[in-house]
Parts: sequence; structure tokens; C-alpha cells
Amino acid sequence: MTQGRVYLVGAGPGDPDLLTVKALRCLEAADVVVYDRLVSPEILNLAPVGAASICVGKQPAHHPVPQEEINQLLVRLANSNRQVVRLKGGDPFIFGRGSEEAMELARHGIPFEVVPGITAAQGCTAAYNVPLTHRGLATGVRYLTGHCRQDVELNFDWKGLADPDTTLVVYMGRANIEEIAGKLMMHGLAGDLPVLVICNGTTSRAKQLASSLSQVAHDVAAAGFDGPVLFVIGRVAGLADVKEPCDVVQEKIVASALA
Amino acid sequence: MTQGRVYLVGAGPGDPDLLTVKALRCLEAADVVVYDRLVSPEILNLAPVGAASICVGKQPAHHPVPQEEINQLLVRLANSNRQVVRLKGGDPFIFGRGSEEAMELARHGIPFEVVPGITAAQGCTAAYNVPLTHRGLATGVRYLTGHCRQDVELNFDWKGLADPDTTLVVYMGRANIEEIAGKLMMHGLAGDLPVLVICNGTTSRAKQLASSLSQVAHDVAAAGFDGPVLFVIGRVAGLADVKEPCDVVQEKIVASALA
Repeated sequence: MTQGRVYLVGAGPGDPDLLTVKALRCLEAADVVVYDRLVSPEILNLAPVGAASICVGKQPAHHPVPQEEINQLLVRLANSNRQVVRLKGGDPFIFGRGSEEAMELARHGIPFEVVPGITAAQGCTAAYNVPLTHRGLATGVRYLTGHCRQDVELNFDWKGLADPDTTLVVYMGRANIEEIAGKLMMHGLAGDLPVLVICNGTTSRAKQLASSLSQVAHDVAAAGFDGPVLFVIGRVAGLADVKEPCDVVQEKIVASALA
Repeated sequence: MTQGRVYLVGAGPGDPDLLTVKALRCLEAADVVVYDRLVSPEILNLAPVGAASICVGKQPAHHPVPQEEINQLLVRLANSNRQVVRLKGGDPFIFGRGSEEAMELARHGIPFEVVPGITAAQGCTAAYNVPLTHRGLATGVRYLTGHCRQDVELNFDWKGLADPDTTLVVYMGRANIEEIAGKLMMHGLAGDLPVLVICNGTTSRAKQLASSLSQVAHDVAAAGFDGPVLFVIGRVAGLADVKEPCDVVQEKIVASALA
């Protein structure tokens, strides 16, 4: 009996067309798909008829499957000779805890492979023609998670984060955006610095709003978004055309960048 | 006569399997492919027989096609009713100057679409099972270009960059790695902080070395890499198994993370 194998696969931001060719191939050959809540139904439907699929969370209000149990599940499935796809939203090695699963598989001698995915920062912004870097606007880009365990204070180098030359993309930041925006302003970023907020990016349920650092907490609360929210903070966010997200003449991007 | 359209497509880090499904579809339907030097032949071969392909640089020692001419070329091709794929290594909106091309297309009223790609930081590290974030090792990740115009000093917020809790990935940094590493140490990062260096990542010509901040400039010079080089600076780089990049039991990743 040959041993099973686990593919830690990035499902990308939601649109099935943003899967990599390799991710699609893994999915089409899967015996079992172990997936997070954020993976879209359109993508899950790409698994073969007859493949098992197991949802392991993670829903804010509900009790998710603990990471340790997910790890053990992957080991068990691989040891019973299954081709396992562990499917995660975005990229498995960016805020995905994929590396914890990789370490557990390694510890048990189970062959595994990491298949990267388009992370939300890339997928969601591309739809609005917002570059993550742009000459004169942003020399680099930075991804941060705004989520932390309950009752734990966000503990970042705020001074370093408040860099007007770097695009800052905050994942899972809705609960803490007021604190994040406040600290960034306290450490020197301007209140009128553009912020693009994207909910359910790259899917048919996508919603977005253009805001600023001083207004974003209020605007997001008022918008009542339903789904994962991404914050893009920086000058490049001012290039977004939020009215017509795709395929349109971008007067605004030009006006802003030429200003 | 219908108007042409331009797809600004990320070719990913080199492995054709890391193209997105959408990128592959665009490529297979292209009339013309306008590509950079860093796009691999395996990917260019996916364009249809009969499609034109135009190389527009950019080779360090040779005179590249100026950005302004590339912009004009894209406009001209689209206006002659071609389906144009502008193919860039990695992601078109991360250090790709894709947004400059997007702005020019917008200014001329030409329909265009941005198709994101797996950026080198994701693709190259996944092959060595190195996560960009990991609980306890890195709360975020940051991409920076180490390239600058000749005779211009690198001008970064070095204090902010020298954050031991953030993985720092430096693109195009070979010429300036000695200065970059030196400044990071001067601003507080430890000389023994792990650095993973990857050349031609995800291709059959991939080479890598495990180093440290104090040694990396020397090690890279000694290695004589031929091709684009990526630097991954931070604790997570210590998890790399550089001897057997894929699919193997990762004793080192476990030992290091459990230490």
C-alpha cells in the first residue's frame, strides 16, 4: 500500500479562475478535501464527484475545529492512503497556519507539498486596478493581521508601520480597525491617507468602499459588511475606481497619479 | 471593427504550473504577447502557434526598451484590434510597473484587465517549505525592492525595516545586499538572523543557500548566482531545508520551531 500525500493548497481570494494550474490539478485528483470556511463553494465544486469534503471551520461565532485536531486529521487521512488536499483561502503560508500543519506532517514522516495561492492583497486590489507598489507612491508593501486573541492587545512596532512610502494591507482587521487607524495616525500617518476596504473580494458578492484613515472605522461600521474584510492603507488606495471595478477607463487613477 | 484589449498578466515565479487558470486562458487566446526577460520559455510556449511575441527587456547590462515605448506599443497593438497579453514575471502590480502601463491604457480609453500572479516571495519560499508568517516567528511579511537607480542612495525607513517580528523579502537586491544587511544590523537586527537566498526559484535552474544577515553579502558573492535573486530575511528563513527542497520530511523545520 502506498502512502497518502497531503497538498497544502492556496485557494486564492475566491474567484476560481485565480486558482493556480497546480492547485486545480491537485483539487481534481483529491480523495479528500479538508477546507476552511473562507473557501468558496465554486472552488469546492471543482473536486471530483465522490471525493469527501470536510469543513474544519473557522467561523468567528462558532466553535472551530482546534488546530491540533486539524493536524491529527490530516495525518490520519494520509496514513489511510488518501490523496488529501488541505484547502485554505488565499496562500497557505500567509496567515494561514499552513506551516503548523506542514510541521505536524513532517513530524509524522508524511509526504506533503505546499502549493501557493494568490493572496487576498493581490487578488482583491487587482480587481480595482490598485497597484500594491507604484513609483512615487509606494516603494514596498506589507501584510499584517489585525486579528489577535481576545483580551490580548495588538502589539506592533507602530512607528515602523506608520510609513507613508509602504502600502499596508491589513487582513482580518475589522474588529480592531479603530485601534489600528488611531495608532497609525498617532505615529504620524495623515488622517486623509486613502484606505480602500474590500469585502468578499473577487467574488460576485464583492463590496468595497473608499475611505481615509480618520474615517475608515466609522465608514466600515456603517457599511455593515457581511464577510471577510481587507484594508488597503496607503497612497495607492487613492487610485481605486470603486464605482466601476473592472475593465473600465480609469480617469481617477490617472488624475491621482499625475497630480 | 472591435477594439483590442490588453491583459496585464502575472506570469508567476517561473514554474508554468504556478500560473493562474485565468492567466493561462489569457495566454492561450493571445494574438500578441509582450514579455519581460524574466518570463520563462516554458510559459511563453503556452501562447498559440502563430501568436507574435515581443521581448521588451529588461536585462541589466543591455539597454532595455524604455517604459514609455512599452506603453506606446501596448496602445498601438490594442488599437489595431489585437488581444494583447502583457506578461510580467511574478505579479504585475508588485514591483512590475504594471500600474504605469495600466494608467497609459486608461488614458487612451483602451479596455484592460489585471490578472494577478504568484509573486516570487510566495512561490520561491513554498518550494522550501518556508512560511512567510508563522505564529511566534513572524506576525507579518513585507516586500521591498533593493534596486534603485544608479547613483541614488537607498532611502528607506531602516529603523522600521529592522523589525524582528516581520519577514522581510527583498527583490532585486543583489547589487545592494551588503548595504541593506549592514543597515538592518546597524538598526538592531541580529547578525545571526537567518537569511534564505533563492536564485531562479521554482525552475529547474533553482539554486539556494542558507545564510545569516552578517554573512549573506559574502556568501552570495561567493556563490556566483546566475539569474534573479530573492532574499528572505527573518526567523522563518531558519525553517528552510535547503538540501532537499520539496516533499521530504522536514526535521529541521520542526526542530527550529519547537526550540
